[in-house]
Amino acid sequence: MSLDSFSRLHRQRIDDRLSQQLDALPAMAPRLRDAMKYGLLLGGKRVRPFLVYAVGEMLAVEADLLDGPAAAVECIHAYSLLHDDLPAMDDDDLRRGQPTVHKAFDEGTAILAGDALQTLAFSILADHPMPEALMANRVRMLSTLARASGYLGMCGGQALDLQAEGRQISLSELEQVHRHKTGALIECAVTLGALCKADIALQTLNALQEYAAAIGLAFQVQDDILDITGDTATLGKPQGSDQALAKSTYPALLGLEQARELARELHGKALTALRPLPYNTDILEAFADYIIERTH
Amino acid sequence: MSLDSFSRLHRQRIDDRLSQQLDALPAMAPRLRDAMKYGLLLGGKRVRPFLVYAVGEMLAVEADLLDGPAAAVECIHAYSLLHDDLPAMDDDDLRRGQPTVHKAFDEGTAILAGDALQTLAFSILADHPMPEALMANRVRMLSTLARASGYLGMCGGQALDLQAEGRQISLSELEQVHRHKTGALIECAVTLGALCKADIALQTLNALQEYAAAIGLAFQVQDDILDITGDTATLGKPQGSDQALAKSTYPALLGLEQARELARELHGKALTALRPLPYNTDILEAFADYIIERTH
Repeated sequence: MSLDSFSRLHRQRIDDRLSQQLDALPAMAPRLRDAMKYGLLLGGKRVRPFLVYAVGEMLAVEADLLDGPAAAVECIHAYSLLHDDLPAMDDDDLRRGQPTVHKAFDEGTAILAGDALQTLAFSILADHPMPEALMANRVRMLSTLARASGYLGMCGGQALDLQAEGRQISLSELEQVHRHKTGALIECAVTLGALCKADIALQTLNALQEYAAAIGLAFQVQDDILDITGDTATLGKPQGSDQALAKSTYPALLGLEQARELARELHGKALTALRPLPYNTDILEAFADYIIERTH
Repeated sequence: MSLDSFSRLHRQRIDDRLSQQLDALPAMAPRLRDAMKYGLLLGGKRVRPFLVYAVGEMLAVEADLLDGPAAAVECIHAYSLLHDDLPAMDDDDLRRGQPTVHKAFDEGTAILAGDALQTLAFSILADHPMPEALMANRVRMLSTLARASGYLGMCGGQALDLQAEGRQISLSELEQVHRHKTGALIECAVTLGALCKADIALQTLNALQEYAAAIGLAFQVQDDILDITGDTATLGKPQGSDQALAKSTYPALLGLEQARELARELHGKALTALRPLPYNTDILEAFADYIIERTH
């Protein structure tokens, strides 16, 4: 299957699963439920669920089993966007051309919806049907998701990002921000997919995490490059908006050519990590290619 | 051991454990870590950890094992207070006489610290050392904590409470609010304590949950009564503040005498639930007494 068809198929699949999760909740607090659903279904690339499915299916895991971890990791991602958009954080009124949750609803509801989406992630992961043989792996998945989302991962990264606001930071500080703020959850997605195989080999897990760390960072570098070279219509956000905000970016710190070189290097690292794996890694390779070739 | 000494001992114990959890985090994002610690250690009755320890020790579970679930449930409680105090929610500047987290730090940090405390709860529960025989129960604990904290529990209750603002609600609506907003996590604490025993009997679990549901609601009824009959110095908050806010309370809906009668009834229900248990329930009984006898 091509990357394109795989991606389209699984994007539809995860959107359906997420919708079902929300529709299964009783109507007790309808405004909260609507806000959760709105935030969760605002679209997006669904990169994290994609990685859960791609890794899991490479390891011959049933897609039904992968639905749980895929939905869980996307709930965490959605909650983080919802809270990042709040006035006290990045204060964004629009996301993907739509009003953000606190604009479409209100700030209190947006805070609460983010909170409840975070909880829902752990609920889904703890409750999703899994065979008995995966009991220990399920606990590892829950531990991995919590670690990747909290102080040591995404929340810590957001705090680093807030600390960096308005001042020039070093290349290694910038990498710290991205490795925590976005990288941790991308690695987590790959790990969750792998842990759906009961007897997953440690070397496989390590190789996949190396792959994930490289593409996670490459994704960010390419994002920074596109902010300069892309056009507003393709990007869905004003071209040059990072520069306008005087944000520290890879091109700003390295120059555009060096930033491109770094993206290529990370792409190479990702492919190298996959090489020893005794599985068909076509989809994961194609995804690494896509990350540095994409124009939006 | 008397309720007083048990309570004092375990309050010290949980404060130490929570402190250790925070101190074990690397200093990567010091402001976030400080805010988490500040919010977590602002004091409070530690009712939920108390219940984990009381139930667990009644069942002869080691206190070391109970530390994890006790810390986890208190992290959830602390995060909820932190977010409830935000300007977009209840907009409180003081909690227990101290500046709230968004006052002592800033709003963005308070949102993030609440988020990270929620994650920390699941992290602790997934990682706390437990014997192999508790693997399945650990997954149940994680599922229970998520259910009690999210849309079906605490978050849903907070949404109901926001919906009820500024209008008179019925007695059954008021009960709905409390059963979700505070009751769910109190029941969860009791359940977590019980699930620390590998072969916990279903009848025991059910009886303990009945007990918890009754004392959870009794606690709230007594709170409402104290708002009218207590004095400001003992309460730590202005006497009559519920009335001033035109909040729906049990005395407002039932009259003071009927509210007292309801508290006594719930107290009776709690004791009845404990009666068939083949364990020493002295501490749990004494706690039920305390709840309706307390003056602050």
